[in-house]
Amino acid sequence: MASKRRQIVALSGEGSTRKFDHLAVEEPLEVRVDTRSVSVTMRTPGHDAELAAGFLVTEGLVHKRRDIAQVKTYSRNDQGNVVDVFLAPHVKLDFAKLTRHVFVSSSCGLCGKASIDAVHQHFKPIKKRVVIQSSVLKKMPVQLNSVQETFAQTGGLHAAAIYSVRGELVVVREDVGRHNAVDKVIGYGFLNELLPYDNHVLLVSGRASFEIMQKALAARIPIVAAISAPSSLAAEFAQSSGQMLIGFLRAGRMNIYAHPERMRN
Amino acid sequence: MASKRRQIVALSGEGSTRKFDHLAVEEPLEVRVDTRSVSVTMRTPGHDAELAAGFLVTEGLVHKRRDIAQVKTYSRNDQGNVVDVFLAPHVKLDFAKLTRHVFVSSSCGLCGKASIDAVHQHFKPIKKRVVIQSSVLKKMPVQLNSVQETFAQTGGLHAAAIYSVRGELVVVREDVGRHNAVDKVIGYGFLNELLPYDNHVLLVSGRASFEIMQKALAARIPIVAAISAPSSLAAEFAQSSGQMLIGFLRAGRMNIYAHPERMRN
Repeated sequence: MASKRRQIVALSGEGSTRKFDHLAVEEPLEVRVDTRSVSVTMRTPGHDAELAAGFLVTEGLVHKRRDIAQVKTYSRNDQGNVVDVFLAPHVKLDFAKLTRHVFVSSSCGLCGKASIDAVHQHFKPIKKRVVIQSSVLKKMPVQLNSVQETFAQTGGLHAAAIYSVRGELVVVREDVGRHNAVDKVIGYGFLNELLPYDNHVLLVSGRASFEIMQKALAARIPIVAAISAPSSLAAEFAQSSGQMLIGFLRAGRMNIYAHPERMRN
Repeated sequence: MASKRRQIVALSGEGSTRKFDHLAVEEPLEVRVDTRSVSVTMRTPGHDAELAAGFLVTEGLVHKRRDIAQVKTYSRNDQGNVVDVFLAPHVKLDFAKLTRHVFVSSSCGLCGKASIDAVHQHFKPIKKRVVIQSSVLKKMPVQLNSVQETFAQTGGLHAAAIYSVRGELVVVREDVGRHNAVDKVIGYGFLNELLPYDNHVLLVSGRASFEIMQKALAARIPIVAAISAPSSLAAEFAQSSGQMLIGFLRAGRMNIYAHPERMRN
């Protein structure tokens, strides 16, 4: 259930009317690893196993499909807002690493470059030669729109999609949180043994930030495209990570912010 | 410095050209309270003291202006990405409370209602009778656009603004993170002793989520308006918190998702 019906009052130049509207569902999800709570995040229910697996992959805590013995989703209450991940016996998890957003390097203080370097200690830059045709990229936003069902209904969801460099859609997921949508498509790849996504494109419906780029690198994605704008740090991250970064991909146009040599006309 | 210039390749139907583009700046900020690191967040540099103060207010850790003795911003490196908050001697801070996003109530499991109840333990619902003219609200998006300078340049920033219910603009702030933009306008009010914002409107350029509503309630804001869609939990939160919630406020139209009795035509 990705949307909920609610009675609202609509105001326009012609006055007010009562009607029903569909809202994107937002509910908390608790992720537990070996029964220990590691994260509570607001998300759109659905594909919770993918969200949990993708979160652990993009945090660098699991690497191979066999690292996870079981992902269990079940009802603790009506919403089923808990997911239990059980690791394989060979995986030693450093729970201290699970504190997110703490990419601080003591060597040069806290800055964008230090944050990028801290990520590169876990995820190496991409050197593989992967290219894509610009015509293939130009078709993606139209297709994303056509499959983004809940967004069309609610206007309230972010989408993330994985495509092959030949333009084949692998998976698309929607969520109230844009990071969650990315975790879900990466978790899908992990659970179905499609990782690394090293001949693939990550397309996001909104903006490209540092954290989106970091998640893409964790899945070895060489090309990231955003319908909207990238941040300065997203561009710097892409440059030093070997990723082509595309922004404002819409209406047959696009801007390339890093590694344009991955593009073929 | 809210934007950075970067050389890019622009592709359109007519081919590719090299040009310069402006990107919204994203840099990490470490918030320290009495020298202890409590948060590292990616944000747009500028108004860091407001961001830190607003974060502490919306987390329910400080309440009155006199609770903070000093907010010190200075260069640990070129970007100045650290802010030190020194509390007044009378404030006893529970550092355990600083773990965000853990609104879990053990009584009924983890669900939207439990999350709302957990917030209401810290911030009571609003009962004060405050109303606004719809004509005043309709003018706000146009004005927000005209003052959102960096967005116009980069397309990459979220904005938050505080208005009085008579339509006077109090403050507007932009940030790559939408929660940060809200923390900044609330921190501005805190540092300038304008809180509570109990005769005010919070306007956000994007979507309204649970966390945005929670922050608004912490500042006692009775009316929240979003240019884009609200989530289901934002609407439920607003309903039980006494807040009027408006979505899709654009082109002279709007939808009211909770407490329409606060609106005058």
